Amino acid sequence: MSKKIVTFGEIMLRLATPGYQRITQASDFEVTYGGGEANVAVSLANYGFEAYFVTKLPPNEVGEACRNYIRRFGVHTDYINMGGERLGIYFLETGAAQRPSKVVYDRANSAISKVQKGEFDWATTFDGAELFHFTGITPALSDSAAEVTMEAVQAAKSAGVLVSCDLNFRKKLWSPEKANKVMSELMQYVDIAVGNEEDAEKVFGIKAENTDIHAGKLDDSGYREVAQKLVEKFDFQKVAITLRESYSAFDNGWSALLYDGKEFYNSRKYNIHVVDRVGGGDSFCGGLLYGLLSGMDNQTALNFAVAASCLKHSIPGDFNLVSKAEVENLMSGDGSGRVQR
Amino acid sequence: MSKKIVTFGEIMLRLATPGYQRITQASDFEVTYGGGEANVAVSLANYGFEAYFVTKLPPNEVGEACRNYIRRFGVHTDYINMGGERLGIYFLETGAAQRPSKVVYDRANSAISKVQKGEFDWATTFDGAELFHFTGITPALSDSAAEVTMEAVQAAKSAGVLVSCDLNFRKKLWSPEKANKVMSELMQYVDIAVGNEEDAEKVFGIKAENTDIHAGKLDDSGYREVAQKLVEKFDFQKVAITLRESYSAFDNGWSALLYDGKEFYNSRKYNIHVVDRVGGGDSFCGGLLYGLLSGMDNQTALNFAVAASCLKHSIPGDFNLVSKAEVENLMSGDGSGRVQR
Amino acid sequence: MSKKIVTFGEIMLRLATPGYQRITQASDFEVTYGGGEANVAVSLANYGFEAYFVTKLPPNEVGEACRNYIRRFGVHTDYINMGGERLGIYFLETGAAQRPSKVVYDRANSAISKVQKGEFDWATTFDGAELFHFTGITPALSDSAAEVTMEAVQAAKSAGVLVSCDLNFRKKLWSPEKANKVMSELMQYVDIAVGNEEDAEKVFGIKAENTDIHAGKLDDSGYREVAQKLVEKFDFQKVAITLRESYSAFDNGWSALLYDGKEFYNSRKYNIHVVDRVGGGDSFCGGLLYGLLSGMDNQTALNFAVAASCLKHSIPGDFNLVSKAEVENLMSGDGSGRVQR
Amino acid sequence: MSKKIVTFGEIMLRLATPGYQRITQASDFEVTYGGGEANVAVSLANYGFEAYFVTKLPPNEVGEACRNYIRRFGVHTDYINMGGERLGIYFLETGAAQRPSKVVYDRANSAISKVQKGEFDWATTFDGAELFHFTGITPALSDSAAEVTMEAVQAAKSAGVLVSCDLNFRKKLWSPEKANKVMSELMQYVDIAVGNEEDAEKVFGIKAENTDIHAGKLDDSGYREVAQKLVEKFDFQKVAITLRESYSAFDNGWSALLYDGKEFYNSRKYNIHVVDRVGGGDSFCGGLLYGLLSGMDNQTALNFAVAASCLKHSIPGDFNLVSKAEVENLMSGDGSGRVQR
Amino acid sequence: MSKKIVTFGEIMLRLATPGYQRITQASDFEVTYGGGEANVAVSLANYGFEAYFVTKLPPNEVGEACRNYIRRFGVHTDYINMGGERLGIYFLETGAAQRPSKVVYDRANSAISKVQKGEFDWATTFDGAELFHFTGITPALSDSAAEVTMEAVQAAKSAGVLVSCDLNFRKKLWSPEKANKVMSELMQYVDIAVGNEEDAEKVFGIKAENTDIHAGKLDDSGYREVAQKLVEKFDFQKVAITLRESYSAFDNGWSALLYDGKEFYNSRKYNIHVVDRVGGGDSFCGGLLYGLLSGMDNQTALNFAVAASCLKHSIPGDFNLVSKAEVENLMSGDGSGRVQR
Amino acid sequence: MSKKIVTFGEIMLRLATPGYQRITQASDFEVTYGGGEANVAVSLANYGFEAYFVTKLPPNEVGEACRNYIRRFGVHTDYINMGGERLGIYFLETGAAQRPSKVVYDRANSAISKVQKGEFDWATTFDGAELFHFTGITPALSDSAAEVTMEAVQAAKSAGVLVSCDLNFRKKLWSPEKANKVMSELMQYVDIAVGNEEDAEKVFGIKAENTDIHAGKLDDSGYREVAQKLVEKFDFQKVAITLRESYSAFDNGWSALLYDGKEFYNSRKYNIHVVDRVGGGDSFCGGLLYGLLSGMDNQTALNFAVAASCLKHSIPGDFNLVSKAEVENLMSGDGSGRVQR
Repeated sequence: MSKKIVTFGEIMLRLATPGYQRITQASDFEVTYGGGEANVAVSLANYGFEAYFVTKLPPNEVGEACRNYIRRFGVHTDYINMGGERLGIYFLETGAAQRPSKVVYDRANSAISKVQKGEFDWATTFDGAELFHFTGITPALSDSAAEVTMEAVQAAKSAGVLVSCDLNFRKKLWSPEKANKVMSELMQYVDIAVGNEEDAEKVFGIKAENTDIHAGKLDDSGYREVAQKLVEKFDFQKVAITLRESYSAFDNGWSALLYDGKEFYNSRKYNIHVVDRVGGGDSFCGGLLYGLLSGMDNQTALNFAVAASCLKHSIPGDFNLVSKAEVENLMSGDGSGRVQR
Repeated sequence: MSKKIVTFGEIMLRLATPGYQRITQASDFEVTYGGGEANVAVSLANYGFEAYFVTKLPPNEVGEACRNYIRRFGVHTDYINMGGERLGIYFLETGAAQRPSKVVYDRANSAISKVQKGEFDWATTFDGAELFHFTGITPALSDSAAEVTMEAVQAAKSAGVLVSCDLNFRKKLWSPEKANKVMSELMQYVDIAVGNEEDAEKVFGIKAENTDIHAGKLDDSGYREVAQKLVEKFDFQKVAITLRESYSAFDNGWSALLYDGKEFYNSRKYNIHVVDRVGGGDSFCGGLLYGLLSGMDNQTALNFAVAASCLKHSIPGDFNLVSKAEVENLMSGDGSGRVQR
Repeated sequence: MSKKIVTFGEIMLRLATPGYQRITQASDFEVTYGGGEANVAVSLANYGFEAYFVTKLPPNEVGEACRNYIRRFGVHTDYINMGGERLGIYFLETGAAQRPSKVVYDRANSAISKVQKGEFDWATTFDGAELFHFTGITPALSDSAAEVTMEAVQAAKSAGVLVSCDLNFRKKLWSPEKANKVMSELMQYVDIAVGNEEDAEKVFGIKAENTDIHAGKLDDSGYREVAQKLVEKFDFQKVAITLRESYSAFDNGWSALLYDGKEFYNSRKYNIHVVDRVGGGDSFCGGLLYGLLSGMDNQTALNFAVAASCLKHSIPGDFNLVSKAEVENLMSGDGSGRVQR
Repeated sequence: MSKKIVTFGEIMLRLATPGYQRITQASDFEVTYGGGEANVAVSLANYGFEAYFVTKLPPNEVGEACRNYIRRFGVHTDYINMGGERLGIYFLETGAAQRPSKVVYDRANSAISKVQKGEFDWATTFDGAELFHFTGITPALSDSAAEVTMEAVQAAKSAGVLVSCDLNFRKKLWSPEKANKVMSELMQYVDIAVGNEEDAEKVFGIKAENTDIHAGKLDDSGYREVAQKLVEKFDFQKVAITLRESYSAFDNGWSALLYDGKEFYNSRKYNIHVVDRVGGGDSFCGGLLYGLLSGMDNQTALNFAVAASCLKHSIPGDFNLVSKAEVENLMSGDGSGRVQR
Repeated sequence: MSKKIVTFGEIMLRLATPGYQRITQASDFEVTYGGGEANVAVSLANYGFEAYFVTKLPPNEVGEACRNYIRRFGVHTDYINMGGERLGIYFLETGAAQRPSKVVYDRANSAISKVQKGEFDWATTFDGAELFHFTGITPALSDSAAEVTMEAVQAAKSAGVLVSCDLNFRKKLWSPEKANKVMSELMQYVDIAVGNEEDAEKVFGIKAENTDIHAGKLDDSGYREVAQKLVEKFDFQKVAITLRESYSAFDNGWSALLYDGKEFYNSRKYNIHVVDRVGGGDSFCGGLLYGLLSGMDNQTALNFAVAASCLKHSIPGDFNLVSKAEVENLMSGDGSGRVQR
Repeated sequence: MSKKIVTFGEIMLRLATPGYQRITQASDFEVTYGGGEANVAVSLANYGFEAYFVTKLPPNEVGEACRNYIRRFGVHTDYINMGGERLGIYFLETGAAQRPSKVVYDRANSAISKVQKGEFDWATTFDGAELFHFTGITPALSDSAAEVTMEAVQAAKSAGVLVSCDLNFRKKLWSPEKANKVMSELMQYVDIAVGNEEDAEKVFGIKAENTDIHAGKLDDSGYREVAQKLVEKFDFQKVAITLRESYSAFDNGWSALLYDGKEFYNSRKYNIHVVDRVGGGDSFCGGLLYGLLSGMDNQTALNFAVAASCLKHSIPGDFNLVSKAEVENLMSGDGSGRVQR
């Protein structure tokens, strides 16, 4: 049941310190690449879809290395535009215990942030596609990137392609006011929306009651209300919200809820000893979209998504390198971690 | 109180991904060597016995590197046969959180699996020896390996050497039916048998009641019955069963019981945050055999074995590189992990 | 509010095995440098003080590498004496689970241990300084090092500089009897004393009642009494005691108390999943001294110190590479470890 | 001018020791993948052709990692058959000075060696293709692999596809007699043949006069005669012979000649300080085939091929990761190695 | 004879692939920092001067790591301005054999390139200084950087500080026309000018006759004329020109000439097997300036400079980490490379 | 033809910087172990002798790691005395081009340097032995080490064991005067002496005429005279002198001569591009002693020794990890470095 899906956005060079070193200690950086929409594409490719990632990469060795990296993990790079000046970079210190992970962005003026309307051939891109996915990061990159995002969602809709969006608010890229304005316009084309425990508040001012995300425990009922308000406001087919209870950089609770305008679905909660949580939300999106598009019912799709993203927390790098069978094994209840020989 | 002991079986090249990388991410493999019987030999050498490991290694650089590795950790390699075509290999991804460790075997046609009766000089090998140890893996390698194993246990018995066996069922090597047939014959020469929470069922169909090993908690009483049935069936002097409660790849409960045909002995249970659990059972065997042969009483030997194998879970690689003093320190109750300066 | 502070003692080459390897497994050592007094200097430099570390380093490439390392992290090296024969070394295996960290010292005959009275120009060193800090390790290095320590504290006092001392008993360097004798004389010049749950007993025979440090839980009231006795005996302005509850090499409880001769102050207790605990006590000292000298009240300074040292446990190497803002973030209650983007 | 080309053969896991370590010293292996036909495909993809590599890979993590690696460097993996038991492996010690590189093969029973006629859909594979390339290694793997190779060349011919072959004799895989027999039959379908200074003699008994390959200098005229005899015997359109003058593992002379049945073409000779010479001949093939298929004249194609393979010797791994522009820069005479900023 | 010297310019994060890997192969980057003016400062600090490097670094972990790196190698960072958005980056592939080193710049919009007049306190900076050094890279960064460079040279002159400049043309930063215009104005303040075999032509159109730098051998007499014309045009006290004969990325000839308006001085030529040639010219500047300022005569200073920079080619990273004694040892004729025990 | 041989001396922890880094750059050290006499033992074990290395190692993890390292490479450790305080250390920067390798010793007060007469059971050690080898380093360690060396050579002589000595002068350990005195006494027990181009002069004042070792070329005839004088003075059976022509750290000429009191034998000269020259002389000794004891004639033994040590220069670490077959392959003239598949 292979389906063509398209994601669009920024992928960055990820320079991570080894072990739990701080940037000021590092004499080497581990080189990988990642970004919200590419991460989702990799998940979908892993589960068997024909995933295409659309972006713009500089036509130099760094851009080529990035394209190669995407290709290596099974995502099609045919629609990538090789042009522009530089690849965005993010420096990562993986947190430990009470010390949070630290991301230092160096993404301004990346090739994709300078993209202009008309650069991509969306008609060809969406030909035969069943899903278009983007995140709130893409339109936040620049005004022109926001315009191209609008161009893309409109083209997708015209082509009869389902549209999904991970709200993904990034405070270093734009203000809540700007985000609200731009995202509200884009949302009218979106069928499936995903957010974390902070996004709805930051982007649309829709806040879960009785919740302090820095205090660990999250109140489920508050988030049901958030989901309901999002559906009311934007008429989404489905909204999913991930709920991270962060006790420390090492210990997280992880669950999610889904609302289809009629009913609420809750996942089980995984207590996770975290290896790498970057890309956790993207792996949820990847799992959810796979589940919904491959014909799982809502509850099963949500369970698949949460199990998939639980496993992501055990894997270094942005990409969730797990197979469908591995996710299903965890869904079926086996989180025992017994050696597989 | 140095004693000559002999173990016999396969040692493989272990190619492990660094950190928690998956095989598909790796640009380097960490090179060590390991296998059930070699692991036991290393434990016994660490505690002060004269341990000899018998196997067949290919006469090329890889075989030499393996022999050197065994020698480095104090095990005698005098009886190793340099011949055959290749060294068996296993690829290892160390699991994390809910993601299990993954072993990919590439062991078919290894030199030891092609061994034939008459290749080893068992009389010389067992001269002066006090113990011969093998595991259920060795006869599973091939029909001829099973024959050589039989040749060995019979020679050991003739030489008045105590025989111990770790049942160690490997489903990729043979079927339960085959295992049952071959192992049942070998068991008549065995004095001390060790198994984990699955082996007796897989090999001999002797199942602990009321236990689901993927559900975490294990029911002690069910395993007492298993031990009793094993002794009844094969007239073992002693049977030990290790009990792993696997909550996740990171968190395990670890304990064991011992039955000498009259009384049951239970160890304390250690809750372990796992670094590397491969070789955990072997380190238990090593500890138990050391305890029993060095004159500890049953309870003390069991405690020594469980403490030793608890420590193994903190050490990368198959070998349990701990001293007798370190094991005794933990046995005496100090698991505080305070820096030793 | 930059202040000149001076610390004096030994810094060593730290050769640590990677990951959780034992020394017998290592084919590489990670190279850093550390020592109690240098570690405190780095903390104070990080928070904005002008920190000077005084020691003696051999005039070869290893000594230069060490000096460069100190300088890299913002500590002034102007008063370091380049002379002598060798740099002290310590080999480190980081512990895991029930296996403790292991330190193998090779520090005899280091340049600093052979230092003689008159080698340092204390008058210049203390000119404009507000604090002199040393630990119980320095006078333990050798008789002449003890004499130089006395020379230093006297010079500090003459210059009107506040003197602080971390008791830091090292049983491999001297006997409790010798320590008691030498330290008692030095203590009359000390204003602020810091110790851990063992030091007062080992050095001065002042034992907390009802406490077994290897049993995990520590009894707070016993340590209040210890603090009181220390103040009575040596007339310290302030005494702080760190309380480590060591459940395993991975899991520690961490808190402290402070006594100013009138009132007791208790910190909250952090439960820490440990990355590297070496330098934990030094990072407490650094935090406490910063707090007290920068005008925090006793409770705030204690909270700052405990939060700072909690973070240290998440950082590889001896040095506590955290900023004042990061400590304050944890003090304010955010130990959630959420990614900082 | 993109063209579809197909190569077919074995790709192996390459486990190389770091630096100039011997296998008996290594605690890590560098992980890449390579094999004659895959190496040629990568070259052709780098220069802009649509290159497809056909092989059989085991359906486990190691096979997937290999497929990903091929894909990463731009070669299409659509026709790869995921099946069989294992991936062939070769261990590599890179030589230095007078010490030669050492290859230890562990390739028996690889998935591709067990391939059977009918497993590949050659009609689809060759649809639209302009070139089929294989080497003398593929039919040497096993009798069935030889049959499949014959199946492939016949299908290629039927589809009107040009066929090229690198003779590539491997003495560990078959005898000269067997090679002669099998290769002679295959040669009737071959249009372009490539060999090194030893192949023609080893496979077909056609020896260059007056040449001792271990003595450094090679006599050009002897190889002209070899080329002539090959064309006479097998009616090749073109024959190319690479001439390696090996002064030491570090210092090689590298040139080639081409014969088109009428004229001889000689390349210039490069004196190379070698980084990694494995894949050197394959990179020549890749360059030559690109040159000939993209319309270069014989001399230019030969120059391109020799320059391309000269650069390969400077790159670690089997693959020649250079662009067309980089090859042309060297062809044009700039081997100065000046920094390109 | 310690002297205060000041250099001003850009320092970048240098991300180098390990070994001879290409960027498309790398899974790690080696992290150092470097730039023409910082490199000169490090050389001067190594030889015993009080060297200050002036730049602007972003106030984040990457900027701090860079500042720490400079400080580590003995250069004062007191006048560095912590501000702006990002640190410039360059990616480096070290060349091998006929394959040149490749530098991919990602330096646009660096903090230093956005610097404005008035940001630095030049009066304080030059107080007590004896030398100000900059390169042709600094004014090329941006118009405002050129203005600040002018501000700096004028302030230096006002303060009676000697001014030196390495012409250092970078074609990716500006055109020859722009360079000519801006540099010509700056040159009127310059006392000592240094260039390589290309700079004078690229910046001022002054070309050495009969020389093709890609052909290996350089014609000395042509460069004497270049030096003469430079002195005539800009009235420099001294001009030095480095002459690199690049036979391959591994093999370079290295020499230089000096002209003081009256006489020509030639150095010996070193044949170098190159480890890392980046920073080679800077290390020459550092050596020359040290020689001239410390009172060597012209010939000796030139010899010192060429020997120093010869050694640089043996050291990884931009910085020339050699002592004065090591340079003098080579100057005195000992390039035998015998082990120093 | 296995023979028991014994070597005696110091083995040190070797901490080498990776690549061509200087110590001040290193964030890791490569961990191996080495020393003149252990190096010879490893060579002899590689060629098939039963080699025993006698030393004293501290009974801690570092001493154990060292013993394991020796054992790994096939040398017997039965006679090693575990005692004393510390293991000697040497820090190594591998030189490059004109920059020499640099060794920083930290060997004072090593366990072996504090050894006392009577600690070793020489009678048992020499029982059945055919050769005792030591170097001029051992008696230089301390007066007591010199006494134990005398004890050893006398015991060897009493037991009818052949004695060989590598003069190996180390200027950091003792003065030429002291060396002359101590070594002259020891020489009366020596049968076979080996030295390099400097030793005879430094130890016994016997200088080769017309030779400047820093000038590259060495004059053969001068060294013949040195050999002759050594035989005259000490009545050696055989003297061998290695002749290193050091053009740079990368390029060395390497040859040797042998004198048996009657005839002179000269080896061919190898031009070597050096990977690691530490242990080069020891590998010559190992080869020579193997040749002489295994029955080769003088010329063949010399050729074997020079070929063996030529290969050593291509291998990282002190030990010459080559087989007899590999040496013979080079002896037979094949230094072409062609890949061995």
